[in-house]
Amino acid sequence: MITITFPDKSTRQYEPGTTPLQIAESISTRLAQDILAATVNGAEWDISRPITEDAEIKLFKWDDAEGKHAFWHSSAHLLAEALQELYPGVKFGIGPAIENGFYYDIDPNGNTITSADFPAIEAKMIELAQKKESIVRADISKDDALKMFGDRGEEYKCELISELEDGHITTYTQGAFTDLCRGPHLPTTAPIKAVKILSLAGAYWRGDEKRNQLVRVYGITFPKKKMLDEYLVMLEEAKKRDHRKIGKEMELFAFSPNVGAGLPLWLPKGAALRDRLEQFLRKIQKRYGYLQVITPHIGNKNLYVTSGHYAKYGKDSFQPIHTPEEGEEYLLKPMNCPHHCEIYRSSPRSYRDLPLRLAEFGTVYRYEQSGELHGLTRVRGFTQDDAHIFCAPDQIKDEFLKVMDIIFYIFKALKFDNFEAQISLRDPNNKEKYIGSDENWHLAENAIIEACAEKGLNARTELGEAAFYGPKLDFMVKDAIGRRWQLGTIQVDYNLPERFQLEFTGADNQKHRPVMIHRAPFGSLERFVAVLLEHTAGKLPLWLVPDQCAVLPISEKFNDYARRVAAELNEADVRAIVDDRNEKIGKKIRDNELKRIPYMLIVGEKEAQNDEVSVRKQGEGDKGTMKITTFAKYLTDEVSSMINQ
Amino acid sequence: MITITFPDKSTRQYEPGTTPLQIAESISTRLAQDILAATVNGAEWDISRPITEDAEIKLFKWDDAEGKHAFWHSSAHLLAEALQELYPGVKFGIGPAIENGFYYDIDPNGNTITSADFPAIEAKMIELAQKKESIVRADISKDDALKMFGDRGEEYKCELISELEDGHITTYTQGAFTDLCRGPHLPTTAPIKAVKILSLAGAYWRGDEKRNQLVRVYGITFPKKKMLDEYLVMLEEAKKRDHRKIGKEMELFAFSPNVGAGLPLWLPKGAALRDRLEQFLRKIQKRYGYLQVITPHIGNKNLYVTSGHYAKYGKDSFQPIHTPEEGEEYLLKPMNCPHHCEIYRSSPRSYRDLPLRLAEFGTVYRYEQSGELHGLTRVRGFTQDDAHIFCAPDQIKDEFLKVMDIIFYIFKALKFDNFEAQISLRDPNNKEKYIGSDENWHLAENAIIEACAEKGLNARTELGEAAFYGPKLDFMVKDAIGRRWQLGTIQVDYNLPERFQLEFTGADNQKHRPVMIHRAPFGSLERFVAVLLEHTAGKLPLWLVPDQCAVLPISEKFNDYARRVAAELNEADVRAIVDDRNEKIGKKIRDNELKRIPYMLIVGEKEAQNDEVSVRKQGEGDKGTMKITTFAKYLTDEVSSMINQ
Repeated sequence: MITITFPDKSTRQYEPGTTPLQIAESISTRLAQDILAATVNGAEWDISRPITEDAEIKLFKWDDAEGKHAFWHSSAHLLAEALQELYPGVKFGIGPAIENGFYYDIDPNGNTITSADFPAIEAKMIELAQKKESIVRADISKDDALKMFGDRGEEYKCELISELEDGHITTYTQGAFTDLCRGPHLPTTAPIKAVKILSLAGAYWRGDEKRNQLVRVYGITFPKKKMLDEYLVMLEEAKKRDHRKIGKEMELFAFSPNVGAGLPLWLPKGAALRDRLEQFLRKIQKRYGYLQVITPHIGNKNLYVTSGHYAKYGKDSFQPIHTPEEGEEYLLKPMNCPHHCEIYRSSPRSYRDLPLRLAEFGTVYRYEQSGELHGLTRVRGFTQDDAHIFCAPDQIKDEFLKVMDIIFYIFKALKFDNFEAQISLRDPNNKEKYIGSDENWHLAENAIIEACAEKGLNARTELGEAAFYGPKLDFMVKDAIGRRWQLGTIQVDYNLPERFQLEFTGADNQKHRPVMIHRAPFGSLERFVAVLLEHTAGKLPLWLVPDQCAVLPISEKFNDYARRVAAELNEADVRAIVDDRNEKIGKKIRDNELKRIPYMLIVGEKEAQNDEVSVRKQGEGDKGTMKITTFAKYLTDEVSSMINQ
Repeated sequence: MITITFPDKSTRQYEPGTTPLQIAESISTRLAQDILAATVNGAEWDISRPITEDAEIKLFKWDDAEGKHAFWHSSAHLLAEALQELYPGVKFGIGPAIENGFYYDIDPNGNTITSADFPAIEAKMIELAQKKESIVRADISKDDALKMFGDRGEEYKCELISELEDGHITTYTQGAFTDLCRGPHLPTTAPIKAVKILSLAGAYWRGDEKRNQLVRVYGITFPKKKMLDEYLVMLEEAKKRDHRKIGKEMELFAFSPNVGAGLPLWLPKGAALRDRLEQFLRKIQKRYGYLQVITPHIGNKNLYVTSGHYAKYGKDSFQPIHTPEEGEEYLLKPMNCPHHCEIYRSSPRSYRDLPLRLAEFGTVYRYEQSGELHGLTRVRGFTQDDAHIFCAPDQIKDEFLKVMDIIFYIFKALKFDNFEAQISLRDPNNKEKYIGSDENWHLAENAIIEACAEKGLNARTELGEAAFYGPKLDFMVKDAIGRRWQLGTIQVDYNLPERFQLEFTGADNQKHRPVMIHRAPFGSLERFVAVLLEHTAGKLPLWLVPDQCAVLPISEKFNDYARRVAAELNEADVRAIVDDRNEKIGKKIRDNELKRIPYMLIVGEKEAQNDEVSVRKQGEGDKGTMKITTFAKYLTDEVSSMINQ
């Protein structure tokens, strides 16, 4: 008998050769229906693959990333099987699962595939899935693999095989289709009940523009038709909320190929919005004892050799900047931390100075392939709402509590009511991967766990997900249409204080090494603005929105009065614009609603006579007539109730 | 007879061969005593050199840069003559006049020169000057020059001569000393009445570290002993006001060789000071309709090829940044204007949108040799308080008036009561050097002149000092010890709108080209902070100073009360710190006076009982006892009276 240990540390005995699926059946029929993937002693495992010795096991369902991954990976094979039937001679590159679905890169080999063919592909996939064919794993020797795929003219697969080590090659077969694959996969294609082919794109073989261009076919599948329908509705909604579209409509930012891809130009309304976010953060951070600093956007290459960032980013990011004389080399900074370590070192530090909380809205630059860039969420230059807390090891918990206060405050002010947290700890079975003493790791890990408990935060704990330099706590927000976005992070770091030989004099008059905590509640201003636009569909909270109200004169006769209203409001710190176009008032109202302006102030004869405005609130309609000053107070009160909780 | 034309366009007739000195004598004996240099038809000219044809002439005295230049250039020769007598065998490199005095680079050739020798050198120079030897110019052929200097073993001079064109080589001789020189020089050494040798430094021949290291001897001379004495007092005072020293004492900024020379790290107190300056400017600029934008710190190399900056900065500044893939090249931005032009182009513009005033606190990077770097005044990265005004040509004057309003407002709030302005126009005799039509130049030049007249600004007008792309208005402030600092600038630019093909649709529905105005009232935040520190000797205006008051408990018993006072003041937006060291109150007062803190609040038994503080003002002494809240109001009122004029 073998002993199977479950995540809750309970154990059960099974015959050798039992599969994860059988183990699930032994627990409940329902679980057996739901599980899609497993890990056995940490290794990915088909649920139909026998286990031959004592093992720790984890079972994954649809709601786990690992479950979806196996589902979509098998779906990629199903797509390939369908394409092989529909387009004889097509050759296959790679076909992985991705965050939302899967793709397969194919060489059409003379066939033409267009979006008009999507329904036929989808139908073929459903037809094949309904055959409920088993997906069978096989070990194969390198020679046999080369022969098998070579005979079929699968030149791309042969190239991949030639780079693999003999004895570690596996294939997966369903019906007439066999693919080179490491798995894991579903036991059969039966659970795949709903299919959508999403799009086509060009992709160079192995990402190398000098090699063949293949066709990348994107798709997504679900275990239920209803889930696909919901996904398609969400996709439509996401399209409407695309921050690139909204950002353009609201004149927040622009990109110019002349400046460079992935380098946003913040237009006046966007820069003002960013500034409001920055001031909002500065204010709360000041209350928590943060000190703002300003550091340059470049640093001597040696600084990053010391920090280790050169080893990490050097080859793959923007290359060193040479000086015309004196032979120096600089790097665009990929991180602010080395500069902050140098500020820490600029003066002797005592325990009385700690925690020292250095904050900077620091713009960093990292190269990304142009194909990977996406609006403000994937850029080449971005401004982190960065801070580094230098503290004594026994101050970690208190600092985590304080950072969490700031993060919760932000989520509340910005109406991210739905968020999740994850505590990432080191893998206790693999300690050599991590730097720092056992004692320090215990201290920091417990500090984070206790801080979360004290805040009543229901955080998921993941072993082995810590950075090599320390444990961390990450926050994901769920947006209005259910998408998850990684935002804030708080990370303990034992590495940089070591590399920079940071010290403080303790109460014992001895030298001690401080701990560093990296934290960024927004992550970056670029990404945060993007998430905020998609979350709110551009209907930003009143305190952030570029134009808080539009004054609409009912005819040109009242343009002057409208301008006076706007001037008075601006003077009272209300952001007001005037729509003095020669248009009917109905059209003006419709247009300004489309522009997502929260308040419209309609002015005509009566209003002009009485220093009044007729107020219309976006989504709520008529709010009656009031004095200009009354409206100004009404609006500024609403703003301060939002940000001064 | 020849006709001599003076700057006021008046003319006089003279014999051919008349010298500028003789012309001065013909006007007044006093003028003849004062003049030191001249230009003849724009060319630099010894005042003892004959004029043989009709010419436009300008005469320069000590108060003109050109006058000082000739004086110090002749003084450099005098220094060389003295060194030649004192240290036989010494060889000479170059010996120019500089901003304050002159230097000579020499190869000691076995001699040892130390600062102990300065009095002897000074004495020898005075002795030689009192001989009142004539300084005589001579044309010499290249062969003769090579022979003359070769015979004397002057290898450095020979190297210089070998690169000169025959027929354009001149020497200047006084007594036994002859130098290779283009001039101009004084007629004799007689006016040199006071001499100070200032310092020694090492300098590579021709700035090339692979060549011989020479000794650079720095000196300064004056026509009156009293002027030297005043200069030496000023030098002492300047040393005390050195912003590098004050910045360190006040913990405003630091440099780290690990980050890089010339790249300031703004420490918390400095960053907060900079932020206050920035907010101050933002506020006034917002009032004048400026729109803040934010652009990246890099741009595609082609952007700067388009703008012309690559041709200007490319070779001598930080070299291009290569991407690891995709073969792109980026530059650290040396200027913000190209990015702002791209923002202008990001949307179609109409005459209704103009003037469009785009402002950015934009950090730019330009390489300087490490030997040229100096604190915050000469750096490799600095943040310009930049803005670009895009306007129609007929809006230039109005925009100049508005920018001047802003500059005067700043000078007043920062107590720069003493400033000068210079209008730089194009040289009307050399129009091909400038781009843009005659009509546009007239328009812009007149706009500036009229704007200055309207403001009652007594600006000096200089022909030929305009940028090639447009006329400009520069402001120099005179600091508390009489030194001049170039600060704000307003420049018209016809070039970039042309290069970027900027357009707007006029009221006539036709396309027009806008004009750009560059303006930066501070110049850069780094330089401005440096000037401010040197101007105020670190005693910054109350609204800017990092710590506005220090609370001093008279004994440890009152530390808690002192902390409460500071907390209450901070809550009321007063920047207060506590000096809770276990020291006598007398020492605390002395120490905090040295730290340049404007107010000290002394607290003991009586104050603690009554929620009071005893106020002591820096430089003024006791101000009596008041309630904490009264002091807070007193201080915030003083601040707002300074910045809300």
